[in-house]
Amino acid sequence: MLIVMDAAATPEEVRRVVETVRRLGFEAHPIPGAQRTAIGVTGNRGTVEPAAIENLPGVLEVIPVTAPYKLVSREAKRENTVVSIRGVPVGGNKLAVIAGPCAVESETQAIEIARLVKDAGATLYRGGAFKPRTSPYSFQGLGPEGLKILSKVRSETGLPIVTEVLDPESVDLVAEHADCLQVGARNMQNFTLLKRLGRLRKPILLKRGMAATIEELLLSAEYMLAEGNYEVVLCERGVRTFVNHTRNTLDLSAIPYVQRISHLPILVDPSHGTGKRQKVLPLSRAAIAAGADGLVVEVHNHPEAALSDGPQALLPSMFAELMDQVRRLAPVLGRTA
Amino acid sequence: MLIVMDAAATPEEVRRVVETVRRLGFEAHPIPGAQRTAIGVTGNRGTVEPAAIENLPGVLEVIPVTAPYKLVSREAKRENTVVSIRGVPVGGNKLAVIAGPCAVESETQAIEIARLVKDAGATLYRGGAFKPRTSPYSFQGLGPEGLKILSKVRSETGLPIVTEVLDPESVDLVAEHADCLQVGARNMQNFTLLKRLGRLRKPILLKRGMAATIEELLLSAEYMLAEGNYEVVLCERGVRTFVNHTRNTLDLSAIPYVQRISHLPILVDPSHGTGKRQKVLPLSRAAIAAGADGLVVEVHNHPEAALSDGPQALLPSMFAELMDQVRRLAPVLGRTA
Amino acid sequence: MLIVMDAAATPEEVRRVVETVRRLGFEAHPIPGAQRTAIGVTGNRGTVEPAAIENLPGVLEVIPVTAPYKLVSREAKRENTVVSIRGVPVGGNKLAVIAGPCAVESETQAIEIARLVKDAGATLYRGGAFKPRTSPYSFQGLGPEGLKILSKVRSETGLPIVTEVLDPESVDLVAEHADCLQVGARNMQNFTLLKRLGRLRKPILLKRGMAATIEELLLSAEYMLAEGNYEVVLCERGVRTFVNHTRNTLDLSAIPYVQRISHLPILVDPSHGTGKRQKVLPLSRAAIAAGADGLVVEVHNHPEAALSDGPQALLPSMFAELMDQVRRLAPVLGRTA
Amino acid sequence: MLIVMDAAATPEEVRRVVETVRRLGFEAHPIPGAQRTAIGVTGNRGTVEPAAIENLPGVLEVIPVTAPYKLVSREAKRENTVVSIRGVPVGGNKLAVIAGPCAVESETQAIEIARLVKDAGATLYRGGAFKPRTSPYSFQGLGPEGLKILSKVRSETGLPIVTEVLDPESVDLVAEHADCLQVGARNMQNFTLLKRLGRLRKPILLKRGMAATIEELLLSAEYMLAEGNYEVVLCERGVRTFVNHTRNTLDLSAIPYVQRISHLPILVDPSHGTGKRQKVLPLSRAAIAAGADGLVVEVHNHPEAALSDGPQALLPSMFAELMDQVRRLAPVLGRTA
Repeated sequence: MLIVMDAAATPEEVRRVVETVRRLGFEAHPIPGAQRTAIGVTGNRGTVEPAAIENLPGVLEVIPVTAPYKLVSREAKRENTVVSIRGVPVGGNKLAVIAGPCAVESETQAIEIARLVKDAGATLYRGGAFKPRTSPYSFQGLGPEGLKILSKVRSETGLPIVTEVLDPESVDLVAEHADCLQVGARNMQNFTLLKRLGRLRKPILLKRGMAATIEELLLSAEYMLAEGNYEVVLCERGVRTFVNHTRNTLDLSAIPYVQRISHLPILVDPSHGTGKRQKVLPLSRAAIAAGADGLVVEVHNHPEAALSDGPQALLPSMFAELMDQVRRLAPVLGRTA
Repeated sequence: MLIVMDAAATPEEVRRVVETVRRLGFEAHPIPGAQRTAIGVTGNRGTVEPAAIENLPGVLEVIPVTAPYKLVSREAKRENTVVSIRGVPVGGNKLAVIAGPCAVESETQAIEIARLVKDAGATLYRGGAFKPRTSPYSFQGLGPEGLKILSKVRSETGLPIVTEVLDPESVDLVAEHADCLQVGARNMQNFTLLKRLGRLRKPILLKRGMAATIEELLLSAEYMLAEGNYEVVLCERGVRTFVNHTRNTLDLSAIPYVQRISHLPILVDPSHGTGKRQKVLPLSRAAIAAGADGLVVEVHNHPEAALSDGPQALLPSMFAELMDQVRRLAPVLGRTA
Repeated sequence: MLIVMDAAATPEEVRRVVETVRRLGFEAHPIPGAQRTAIGVTGNRGTVEPAAIENLPGVLEVIPVTAPYKLVSREAKRENTVVSIRGVPVGGNKLAVIAGPCAVESETQAIEIARLVKDAGATLYRGGAFKPRTSPYSFQGLGPEGLKILSKVRSETGLPIVTEVLDPESVDLVAEHADCLQVGARNMQNFTLLKRLGRLRKPILLKRGMAATIEELLLSAEYMLAEGNYEVVLCERGVRTFVNHTRNTLDLSAIPYVQRISHLPILVDPSHGTGKRQKVLPLSRAAIAAGADGLVVEVHNHPEAALSDGPQALLPSMFAELMDQVRRLAPVLGRTA
Repeated sequence: MLIVMDAAATPEEVRRVVETVRRLGFEAHPIPGAQRTAIGVTGNRGTVEPAAIENLPGVLEVIPVTAPYKLVSREAKRENTVVSIRGVPVGGNKLAVIAGPCAVESETQAIEIARLVKDAGATLYRGGAFKPRTSPYSFQGLGPEGLKILSKVRSETGLPIVTEVLDPESVDLVAEHADCLQVGARNMQNFTLLKRLGRLRKPILLKRGMAATIEELLLSAEYMLAEGNYEVVLCERGVRTFVNHTRNTLDLSAIPYVQRISHLPILVDPSHGTGKRQKVLPLSRAAIAAGADGLVVEVHNHPEAALSDGPQALLPSMFAELMDQVRRLAPVLGRTA
């Protein structure tokens, strides 16, 4: 931490800040300058609460330096984490593609789409049984019935299942059927849910919140690692900005950034990231080219009749085209698909 | 809903869209234009899912028209809702000021601050027992012990208690001690929590999410009204933007906007809205002048030792000054304080 | 400036950074910590270009500390600047209200509106002769003819004239007719124009850009002060965010922030700041309550026939009501109107 | 345009709106619905100013439908535009890579970098002689001297020159030396400059403004096409959002969106788009994979000594690596490099 003193701060004020820092159990290193004095703060037990300092007379600004996350950081673990979802690795050399409908609507629909995406090359299946919907009057998912259908999809196709969990109460129920539990963007800072999932021993897919910084995303992952669950996969799915030609603005620079500071794998969801079917294909290519460990893609066999998010779901033929392109891109990037 | 056809759409394509709309049980009204045709859609049972239409050949764009919320809207109820929090009205002529520490830290601290804010004129008390914290390593609140302290604050000072609830499991526990349950910004779209609170018969303070539109805020309130709880107070607390001189950007234009389209009361939280103590006073005045029904303000007797959010907490003397200014502003705005 | 070294940086790497800093003519102050070393940098001639440092081996991050603006800062001049626009003070105790149509459309229109706003209490007149328009096919203003009308408005009503200048070439022409030249949001970083205006000896009204930080706004003002023109009035007019219920999001916390770090006066433009007539009145009150030195408001006698920005222009009766409210608010804030 | 009437609007109010629309010379098509009436508006001469309508009694909302740009749209010209910069095509099958230093600093530096980027495979050279700088105290470019150096770069290396023009006055001077004139992000809505460049007969590289929508970018291009200059190349360079891990947020979904609605070529500038050298390579790949027609990349031989924007400039070896990757990506995307 660095404390910047006002240009007009008196030596007495500087001394008082130094004493306060030391009284709190930290080291204070005054750096006298031509115009003003700065004070470096170091120590090996946590961080000083800025509040304790920034109200002292003569203090202009307090600048934090140390990152607040630990277990998720590259400094804590140099090599990449590879999360295994029922045997399918996420984060290794092979790109992971999780595909399926936004919502499970019926057994027929779920299995038909599963066969189509598996044939095209997807190795993991996604489908929502519990849907978080902005309006109370929108379709909220089939619930427990949807989970049973997902189990059936796995037994029929062998694809591991990724599905969203909305609240701590249903973690056990969802975990019974799912191979990986998804935390949606709206729940990225539902800390009770994160703590509960931290005590689970199943992989978690954690989506970035619509207004979340990468630091906040990593701290939400840290909640789970701190409870003992190290099987966390991150997912960039677009953030909310003034830009109005897509539903969200996909922040692909998050990929190299996360990979530099954390060892966790990161996927990209171009379906929610753009909200428009025509953009899923080019943005999927872009995500892979940026270095993502894989994709989360919505596919529907009859998107015009989808009960939620139809406009962003790929048609099966488009998904086959996407997989074809991913397979051709992968070797250029030193990966397999 | 309005369907805009491509300039190059054929009459056959237009006909197919019209037929599809009618097959879905709605009325279609083609509007031939000089350059292109548009098709108006009307009907009295819900809305067409745009997905059903926007993939038909020749369709350029689908524009929704009807607002998706019902019970919270001014069209549903013309007169303002006044929510009574243990006898203290919020949303009526008298401005409501909810004040107290960010977190309850001890009985002594909680009661001392309560006496100070009551003396200064606050009519409701706030204080967190369960704190949502970005980092798992930050102070998370005193929990049930904090709730007991809040009950004690009420019995000692008579101030009704507003406190945050983080998850459905603790709704009953929090409701036992609180007079109004707060849903924080990060939980604005925690729909399981909202539904649970909709079945409670206690007032709710619903804070706007960091990236939420007003429509989304109102739909979250609609979740509770749809379950039967009409005692919802909204709260603007700033949104996340590129602006970096405050922690959040307080969107005061939300006040007149909400008041035009909804009957629910709306407060402003200038403490979280700015994150800086020095801005709380001018932005509190601005909020009242914009027409807010009151304020939610953090006050701490020793902010430099606060366990959370110290830099934005007002000193007691500053809060007294704030109340003094609010009292002088109120009559100019035709209100009392 | 503070240089943060990687936790794994070697003593040799630290030494090399220190030497580089010194070679560039600055002082380097190493601060060894429990986990990593930081290096404080001070000096009295400009700032180190971070680029010179952040690529050295072992450097994790470079954090700038000193503010880059000088003449506009409170540290340079403690007392408030009061800008006189042909005798009307802006920035003093008395609130300034600049009112008029978005665009000058005809002599009749311009003078009629001028009389109306003067009667209601405005002390300065605004009206665009050169209009920056997003589309080349929109009305671009009357140009030189509009300027002559503005001169006539002044001679008829005595109101000093504020009008926009779009480019360096027309500065002399506009300055011939205007008492204060406005730089619009889109030109806030048109540095050629700013430098040219810095050599003028007339007051400038500088509007904040749609995506400008306060630091950037102040640096644009600094361009003019650095050239010798100290008569600069700032104007907050809303920034662009994801929020979609207003055209822009008015950032009223900019008011106390600017007033703390700069001595320049700051006005608020609630017409552009909201883009909606119904919000101009509540947000004008809010701006004044936040401490603004005055308002810039669009008024039109026939807004439904306005050639630009009609929906945000106040009707004369609404402006009279606004002035009435401003007059009643002013004394509560220790000001006059 | 669609006019949505209030649910409570009277038949008389509907009639008045219809009459107003017709009086303005347009067709009005009332669409009575179960809950409310909407009125479609069509016509072949421009658009109705919404202001003329939305203040009429009973009107709830006015929704524009027709896009305001014409010459830049795909509807106006179906096939892609290929702009030739002194014989180098931009927008065709072959990817264009414009590389060079942020600022021209000396003849030696400029030519040395030009040789390096040419050897690595760049086909166009960029370098700033006039630099727009946020602070008046930052290096502003070598000016006319820099332009002469750029001419020398061309005669020495054969690379066509792309350089920024800051104001209308220097258009002729810059055009004398440059093969393509760049309009920077801060000048995207400098309409006087755009009009002047519209009368030039040289290619223009138009960068997206930091808070510009794609519609605004296209309308700025339209300013030039409307004046007769059809040689416009667009450039995505990141927008300003809350995201703080990059200088700007690169909006790669803009690529497919622009390509769908416009025939103009579009490049991506990953240097400004990220502001961090380490991200230029992954985001360059992503841009190409998203379908961009090429890249604008900053390269410096001694970035630690660069006079501006050093941290985002690639080292020559990194640029060679980038070109190598682009060459391997291109065939996968059906392009050449």
